[in-house]
Amino acid sequence: MKLYNAPLSGNCHKIRLMLSILGVKHEVVPINMSKGEHKTPEYLAINPLGKVPAFEDDGAVIWDSQAILVYLARKHDRTDWFPEDPAGMAEVVKWLSFATHEVWNGPAIARAIIKFKRPLDLRAAQKLTQDALGILDGWLKTRAWLACSRPTIADIACYPYTAMAWEGEVDMTPYKAVDAWIKRIEALPGYIGMPNMPRPK
Amino acid sequence: MKLYNAPLSGNCHKIRLMLSILGVKHEVVPINMSKGEHKTPEYLAINPLGKVPAFEDDGAVIWDSQAILVYLARKHDRTDWFPEDPAGMAEVVKWLSFATHEVWNGPAIARAIIKFKRPLDLRAAQKLTQDALGILDGWLKTRAWLACSRPTIADIACYPYTAMAWEGEVDMTPYKAVDAWIKRIEALPGYIGMPNMPRPK
Repeated sequence: MKLYNAPLSGNCHKIRLMLSILGVKHEVVPINMSKGEHKTPEYLAINPLGKVPAFEDDGAVIWDSQAILVYLARKHDRTDWFPEDPAGMAEVVKWLSFATHEVWNGPAIARAIIKFKRPLDLRAAQKLTQDALGILDGWLKTRAWLACSRPTIADIACYPYTAMAWEGEVDMTPYKAVDAWIKRIEALPGYIGMPNMPRPK
Repeated sequence: MKLYNAPLSGNCHKIRLMLSILGVKHEVVPINMSKGEHKTPEYLAINPLGKVPAFEDDGAVIWDSQAILVYLARKHDRTDWFPEDPAGMAEVVKWLSFATHEVWNGPAIARAIIKFKRPLDLRAAQKLTQDALGILDGWLKTRAWLACSRPTIADIACYPYTAMAWEGEVDMTPYKAVDAWIKRIEALPGYIGMPNMPRPK
């Protein structure tokens, strides 16, 4: 198993976190995005989208962090982390889409603008961050986990950029249920944080 | 089975298309978005994101078009449309994420700006449309289908807004492999189009 990894990418963090929770040995291939290593012909042959993470195992090449989470859970027969019944699987997948769309367009982009000087609209991304945090907070007011009443890859998929939303200069203090959910994830056996992970003041 | 549906939504179209291909009887509940019926307290109790489609079956409530495709394939044991082996499933899921992110932010948004007067950045959405079409075209140059060498929910998920990209005033003629793939999907047994679907000139 080989993970193409950038240390500060939240999408890479979710894969490292899942691998740690599952206790799966793997090789890490560093991709230095500031040197454009994600846009070389060699890397584009692995992931034509030119993004991290990507993952190789047994001849399978998988890009997209949500798809890699699905792969890891299926490969290790962890139906606790990704159920196989139609309703349970769909309940998880709706939050994988939420991670791909709402969590990316909001907190991930707001953070990228502040932290990596991405030339995008900060106000718009901060508004989308508040929208996403509001939906999560409403959902988690009466639930400990996003799907299936237990930790699943839905939580792992939505966690990194949600937990780092403050790095996009969005006040997270109104979202108490989100804060409690973040703490539950960080208490999971096998949890690992980002390298030198900063914390909100 | 109950589909909360808006006729001109590409995300609803993909569910109607899958239901037709699978030959599944269902009830359609019309949601009139111009009257704000997707933002009523009753509808938000079904889908807190306030979007169509949503789907109900046997007590399960599923929002998000990609999650509904997963549900329909699993529920009807159609592993031809959504494989259950780890690599095959992940190969499909990476294109579900592509539908949620690249196909939405590009062609769906460009079309929404032109067709529904959404106050967003048309030039940016058209650029993202060209990026998405370019990636699809490169991938499909050597493949008939997006994943697993056969039609899957990956194709159904990416099809509607890709096929309607011209409605966002993007020239689709350079993307020959995408055009051939669109025609293959439209030749599938059970294929149905949008109501009064316009065609590019």
